[in-house]
Amino acid sequence: MFRNNYDNDAVTFSPQGRIFQVEYASEAVKQGSVVVGIASKTHTVLVALKRNAEELSSYQKKIIGIDEHFGLALAGLASDARVLSNFMKRQALASKMTYGRPIPIERIVERIGDRAQTSTQVYTKRPYGVGLLVAGVDETGPHLFEFQPSGMTQEMVACAIGARSQMARTYLERHLDKFADSSRDELIKHGLLALKESLSQDKELTVDNASLGVTGVAKDGKRKIETFKLYDGPEIGPLLEAALETSEAAPAAEGGESMEVDT
Amino acid sequence: MFRNNYDNDAVTFSPQGRIFQVEYASEAVKQGSVVVGIASKTHTVLVALKRNAEELSSYQKKIIGIDEHFGLALAGLASDARVLSNFMKRQALASKMTYGRPIPIERIVERIGDRAQTSTQVYTKRPYGVGLLVAGVDETGPHLFEFQPSGMTQEMVACAIGARSQMARTYLERHLDKFADSSRDELIKHGLLALKESLSQDKELTVDNASLGVTGVAKDGKRKIETFKLYDGPEIGPLLEAALETSEAAPAAEGGESMEVDT
Amino acid sequence: MFRNNYDNDAVTFSPQGRIFQVEYASEAVKQGSVVVGIASKTHTVLVALKRNAEELSSYQKKIIGIDEHFGLALAGLASDARVLSNFMKRQALASKMTYGRPIPIERIVERIGDRAQTSTQVYTKRPYGVGLLVAGVDETGPHLFEFQPSGMTQEMVACAIGARSQMARTYLERHLDKFADSSRDELIKHGLLALKESLSQDKELTVDNASLGVTGVAKDGKRKIETFKLYDGPEIGPLLEAALETSEAAPAAEGGESMEVDT
Amino acid sequence: MFRNNYDNDAVTFSPQGRIFQVEYASEAVKQGSVVVGIASKTHTVLVALKRNAEELSSYQKKIIGIDEHFGLALAGLASDARVLSNFMKRQALASKMTYGRPIPIERIVERIGDRAQTSTQVYTKRPYGVGLLVAGVDETGPHLFEFQPSGMTQEMVACAIGARSQMARTYLERHLDKFADSSRDELIKHGLLALKESLSQDKELTVDNASLGVTGVAKDGKRKIETFKLYDGPEIGPLLEAALETSEAAPAAEGGESMEVDT
Amino acid sequence: MFRNNYDNDAVTFSPQGRIFQVEYASEAVKQGSVVVGIASKTHTVLVALKRNAEELSSYQKKIIGIDEHFGLALAGLASDARVLSNFMKRQALASKMTYGRPIPIERIVERIGDRAQTSTQVYTKRPYGVGLLVAGVDETGPHLFEFQPSGMTQEMVACAIGARSQMARTYLERHLDKFADSSRDELIKHGLLALKESLSQDKELTVDNASLGVTGVAKDGKRKIETFKLYDGPEIGPLLEAALETSEAAPAAEGGESMEVDT
Amino acid sequence: MFRNNYDNDAVTFSPQGRIFQVEYASEAVKQGSVVVGIASKTHTVLVALKRNAEELSSYQKKIIGIDEHFGLALAGLASDARVLSNFMKRQALASKMTYGRPIPIERIVERIGDRAQTSTQVYTKRPYGVGLLVAGVDETGPHLFEFQPSGMTQEMVACAIGARSQMARTYLERHLDKFADSSRDELIKHGLLALKESLSQDKELTVDNASLGVTGVAKDGKRKIETFKLYDGPEIGPLLEAALETSEAAPAAEGGESMEVDT
Amino acid sequence: MFRNNYDNDAVTFSPQGRIFQVEYASEAVKQGSVVVGIASKTHTVLVALKRNAEELSSYQKKIIGIDEHFGLALAGLASDARVLSNFMKRQALASKMTYGRPIPIERIVERIGDRAQTSTQVYTKRPYGVGLLVAGVDETGPHLFEFQPSGMTQEMVACAIGARSQMARTYLERHLDKFADSSRDELIKHGLLALKESLSQDKELTVDNASLGVTGVAKDGKRKIETFKLYDGPEIGPLLEAALETSEAAPAAEGGESMEVDT
Repeated sequence: MFRNNYDNDAVTFSPQGRIFQVEYASEAVKQGSVVVGIASKTHTVLVALKRNAEELSSYQKKIIGIDEHFGLALAGLASDARVLSNFMKRQALASKMTYGRPIPIERIVERIGDRAQTSTQVYTKRPYGVGLLVAGVDETGPHLFEFQPSGMTQEMVACAIGARSQMARTYLERHLDKFADSSRDELIKHGLLALKESLSQDKELTVDNASLGVTGVAKDGKRKIETFKLYDGPEIGPLLEAALETSEAAPAAEGGESMEVDT
Repeated sequence: MFRNNYDNDAVTFSPQGRIFQVEYASEAVKQGSVVVGIASKTHTVLVALKRNAEELSSYQKKIIGIDEHFGLALAGLASDARVLSNFMKRQALASKMTYGRPIPIERIVERIGDRAQTSTQVYTKRPYGVGLLVAGVDETGPHLFEFQPSGMTQEMVACAIGARSQMARTYLERHLDKFADSSRDELIKHGLLALKESLSQDKELTVDNASLGVTGVAKDGKRKIETFKLYDGPEIGPLLEAALETSEAAPAAEGGESMEVDT
Repeated sequence: MFRNNYDNDAVTFSPQGRIFQVEYASEAVKQGSVVVGIASKTHTVLVALKRNAEELSSYQKKIIGIDEHFGLALAGLASDARVLSNFMKRQALASKMTYGRPIPIERIVERIGDRAQTSTQVYTKRPYGVGLLVAGVDETGPHLFEFQPSGMTQEMVACAIGARSQMARTYLERHLDKFADSSRDELIKHGLLALKESLSQDKELTVDNASLGVTGVAKDGKRKIETFKLYDGPEIGPLLEAALETSEAAPAAEGGESMEVDT
Repeated sequence: MFRNNYDNDAVTFSPQGRIFQVEYASEAVKQGSVVVGIASKTHTVLVALKRNAEELSSYQKKIIGIDEHFGLALAGLASDARVLSNFMKRQALASKMTYGRPIPIERIVERIGDRAQTSTQVYTKRPYGVGLLVAGVDETGPHLFEFQPSGMTQEMVACAIGARSQMARTYLERHLDKFADSSRDELIKHGLLALKESLSQDKELTVDNASLGVTGVAKDGKRKIETFKLYDGPEIGPLLEAALETSEAAPAAEGGESMEVDT
Repeated sequence: MFRNNYDNDAVTFSPQGRIFQVEYASEAVKQGSVVVGIASKTHTVLVALKRNAEELSSYQKKIIGIDEHFGLALAGLASDARVLSNFMKRQALASKMTYGRPIPIERIVERIGDRAQTSTQVYTKRPYGVGLLVAGVDETGPHLFEFQPSGMTQEMVACAIGARSQMARTYLERHLDKFADSSRDELIKHGLLALKESLSQDKELTVDNASLGVTGVAKDGKRKIETFKLYDGPEIGPLLEAALETSEAAPAAEGGESMEVDT
Repeated sequence: MFRNNYDNDAVTFSPQGRIFQVEYASEAVKQGSVVVGIASKTHTVLVALKRNAEELSSYQKKIIGIDEHFGLALAGLASDARVLSNFMKRQALASKMTYGRPIPIERIVERIGDRAQTSTQVYTKRPYGVGLLVAGVDETGPHLFEFQPSGMTQEMVACAIGARSQMARTYLERHLDKFADSSRDELIKHGLLALKESLSQDKELTVDNASLGVTGVAKDGKRKIETFKLYDGPEIGPLLEAALETSEAAPAAEGGESMEVDT
Repeated sequence: MFRNNYDNDAVTFSPQGRIFQVEYASEAVKQGSVVVGIASKTHTVLVALKRNAEELSSYQKKIIGIDEHFGLALAGLASDARVLSNFMKRQALASKMTYGRPIPIERIVERIGDRAQTSTQVYTKRPYGVGLLVAGVDETGPHLFEFQPSGMTQEMVACAIGARSQMARTYLERHLDKFADSSRDELIKHGLLALKESLSQDKELTVDNASLGVTGVAKDGKRKIETFKLYDGPEIGPLLEAALETSEAAPAAEGGESMEVDT
């Protein structure tokens, strides 16, 4: 019987140089329902599937606004995500008060990355069991970052994490070259369509299980940031309809090139 | 023989990304007697079953008032609940003294959530073995939150936790659309009837084993909060009678739609 | 062979949500000799059996006065009880100096409850191996509380803990409705008779093995507290005689109803 | 094969509620040579057997003076006893400087009791492996206390601990009723005779293996304390002779009643 | 079956004096994609292979600029590298503010070396799972250092670490005598060609998978430092072309001597 | 197979009340080369065997002067001894500065005893693996103390510890009655002869393997302390010759009585 | 199968009183390449073999200058040595600033000895895996000390540690009587020749693998210290030639006596 002697804590390397506990924490991310993020030259969009949403719950927080200029989507342990969110809120607030400007997205992401790395190197802790997509706009434009339980953070053009997210990633890779110049509406459609790919065959995207967060820069003014806007429940209906129509109207366009021409 | 190597502490992930100790702590919640919570547009109600209540004990604390505007119901380890209650009392008091207003329900719930998450990520601690339903009224109206041992917190329209709570949840789901507009009295009846569903067949709801807590906003004035009111023992008799009468008067109305018409 | 993997420390839940080390600590309470407590509308009484009292020892502390208005009876590890007693003495003194009034019984009981809960949630400690009955009188009248190793505390009308205490509890349940209006003397008799029930057949209550503590409010004045009075050794003789006489005089009155009429 | 899973540290209860490490620490006391203590209305006496006394050692400390008004006798780990002794010396000194009077015997004993209890409840420590008899005189008269590794402390009329101490205890129980009114000399004789009972058959009490400590109140004056006096080596000769003469002169008086009449 | 009892933490030596956990951490370095560093009398160059670069990621940080005068290339755990990088950034900043000059390369390298050694000597930590090549220019000229998980640091003329790095090292050793006097462009070519050697046969160096960092001293002025310059994506194209042309133009020059003559 | 479950740390008692790790630490003392100490009414002498003294080492510290009035001899772990020595030096210096007089020998010995006891009662430490003989002169005359790894300290007339020390102890016991009145020279001879007894048959005492430390009070003046004097190497030659001559001159006097008559 | 239960940490003694982890740490020293040290009346010399020196590394630090008046040679874990070196540098600097004079060699050596002993007595640490030869000149002349992982330190006339160092030690023992009066040049030759003895048969001492450090007192002036001088690479050529010539010129002089006559 195989017995792994190196997977009991995050401060033990295996003979191959792996840290199993960090890898197991990543499995917790895969247990979470899928979330998708995309960035264009002017906007970022986060889309999430609310899985197993109980009717009794008024809403499930898969997307959380952190500051006016950014928010996050999570997959994995919700309480770990809340702790990291609250940490980010405090950091964002402190930054505003100290420097008089919104914290740059990359900096806030590095901070949670460092915090997460610490809990992979100290015996008395465990890694965070959650993956995050952090999306927002700062002085250098829109940014999308992926955060992993290892503390690894990476800027992405588009990303999907969580259960069955590979299918969403395939969609994103196929449409990668269109994102940069997509309009706000187009970006939302791409997000929802990518999310739809990750659903199992017997499920549909609905106003009950989809959630969306958008931010961007207003095109007319100069660097006027569009406050992070969360769409949940009925509000998401029209957006969903628009996206699915497109999708059904162009079923043959699976390759995706022609489909996007006129949106 | 199956041997689980990953369930000895809350800082170890299983290869599937699960934290067994947190799941086991949730079992402690299921060992507790059932509690039910419902929120309407104007009120929140908490109902609890006092199980195995010894005659010698003057009363068993399943529902605890924390501040004038909110209280909680607990299922699981009573001493863990008391520690969390006292923590909430101190936080509520500090908030009043610092900001001159009652602490928002969501904020106080997040605080215990964060505290609980900490004990799932530090080697020297264990998760809290208790689930809570926190119900109250603040400036944004009535709120009901569920707190789980993982530190997860979630706003709910209605909720039931503890032993055999699934049956109460079924009742709540069936009547979900009526809660928002229910009157104070109707909400209490729904709470007691949901609780009744979770009793084993040979048991009855009585003044000895039922407990109730209510708060709300007065309809006439503007945001005048009705202080959290705890009903225990004889006091609960009339409420119980009213609810059970309704129930017996309309046995065929199991589906629940017609039953509520004239209450 | 059954091997329990979850019972080595108080920070590990079993898959069923139990904390075995807390349950084992409760066994230490059952190893202690029985103590009984009862509260009436005006008095509280604590009675204890001094088991295995060595002749060489001048007296064994089963009942300890903490402050003028309350005391406790213990079953289990005596040194754990002393540490908790000293903690209560310091708290009671501090309360007097800060607020100029005796500490309310419920508050002091909650304090040791919280302290005890802490040692069930931190890896480096163990639960207290002692159960306490805390009895006294404060501004809200007489109170009796049970404290358990889990940190659980509960107000009781009457209670018995320790070895063979089930038999005392049966007595208490049978006479439950008489306690509220019992006089000081009647309460003492009930306490001693309940204690007697827990003795094994070959043992007798004597001035050497019984101990008693009483406090109450004087009926004439207003809320004049009767200082906690400890009876040990010869002093306890007359009380014991009175109780046992009653008992022998009415052997048929096992049901207890008629027996109490003329006391 | 029996395998005890609950005896590795003092913070683990067995399923029966026992703490084996504390019991094992008590075994260390039984490994120590026997010491005896007795208290009368006016005096306390401590007697000790120096076992395996190497000739090369000038003297072995079985009895230690702590302050002018009290001292102790030890059985078990000598270095643990020294640490506790030094702690008591500092406490006694601090008490004198703060309150201007000798520390009450019960208080100092409680202090080491609490200290010892702590090391039975914290994972990183071990219980003290020593038993003490603390004897002295304070404002309330002469007192003798037993201290156990569990942190348990108890006032005694007479006591014996250490190897083969059961035989000394039997002697003490047989003569119990004479101690209260014994004179200083009588008390010393009782102590030595009790000690003698614990010797194995091939051993004798001699000036080399016996040690003695006495304190008391002068009968004439008012509460004039007789400084704790340690007898070791040659000094102990006359006392030993007096005791053994008595013993040999009255071999038939094993029951002990008549023997003491004329001393 | 072989069972290694000495490889569970970094504070245990094997009987042969090895610390396996440190060796396992070095395996994590070998899991990282290859990075190459070379120093001449006037410049240092770092070259890195971006392995498994997802299309969705905008760029992968294998080379990081720390201060104006130096940067690093990493192989292994990216989050460990980021923590060390941020530490170096703070140290470099502090040095500038305290001493008014860039921190010497050797000093900053020693600092991370000491920090890393600490986590190989303390039970509660794990070694860093990353190797670094730190390259820069200070008052004493250009310097290249290798940092290993053991905390070992060593000044190098040229170095390659990461997966399949042995092949790059062979290239470096073969051309070792040319580096000192190489021009900036020559050094870049050597770096890219060494990197190319480490690719598996079915892979090519492209603008997508190669990354480069250069710093040096301007030849004309005196000790004017050329700011650390990072080449990524399209920018790297011309450099790559130049290097590969050379390589293809002189396939027979595998020995390398003649090949470099006219570059 | 016997498996000792109680010998892994110094905070675990065996069921018999033993602390094996302390006993094992005492074995480290027995691994050290033998040292001997003797005290007379006027002097103390320490003698040590330098075992396995490498020629390359200029000298091996078996005897260390701590302050002007005392020094020590060690058997066991030399680095543990150095740490304790340095601690004693600091304590001695502090005593001089605070009280203006040399620290009493008993006090300094108690201090290291307490320090050593601590490391037998705390999980994170180990006992000191060294035995010491501390010899010196203070206001109460010459004193010799033995210090053991358990923290136990004991005043001795004469003592020998380390490998084969039993044979030296036998010599010391045989001559015990002569030490008190021995002159400085006689005491040295006794020390060297006792040491000689512990040598294996094929070894001799030489200037290379013997070491000696002496202190005392000058006979003429009043309490004038003779500074602790260390004899090592050539210096020890004449002393050694004198002792061995005596020994050879009186080979028949093994019993030792007559031998000492004329020295 | 033999299973060592006592070799997992440095705070556990084996039943024979050994601390295996310290012994294993000493094995790490034997894994290091050999270093040699010798002291004369006027000079000290350190010589080291750079083993497995990669061509790519510019130099390997086997000998490190700490302060003007002393340096060290190391065998074992290089990062442990660096940490100790940096500690010594800070201590030396502090000593200069506090006392205005170079720190005595013995004192600085004791400091690292104490630091190393600490990590053999605390559970959370490991012993240092490095041996050092510390050589320098202070007010009392030239000194050479050996430092071992146990924290043991010892003054030596000559010493060799590391792989195959026994052969170098044999050379040193054979020439021991010549070192005291050797000139600077003679001492260097002895060092290099001793080092040569430790090479395996197929290796030679070269400018690439030998390293040397020298300090001393100038013969003419009074106690003028010759700054610690490190010879590495080409610089060492002439010294090496001189030493090897001597060696080859006198192959028959293996005994070494005549060989040194004319140097």
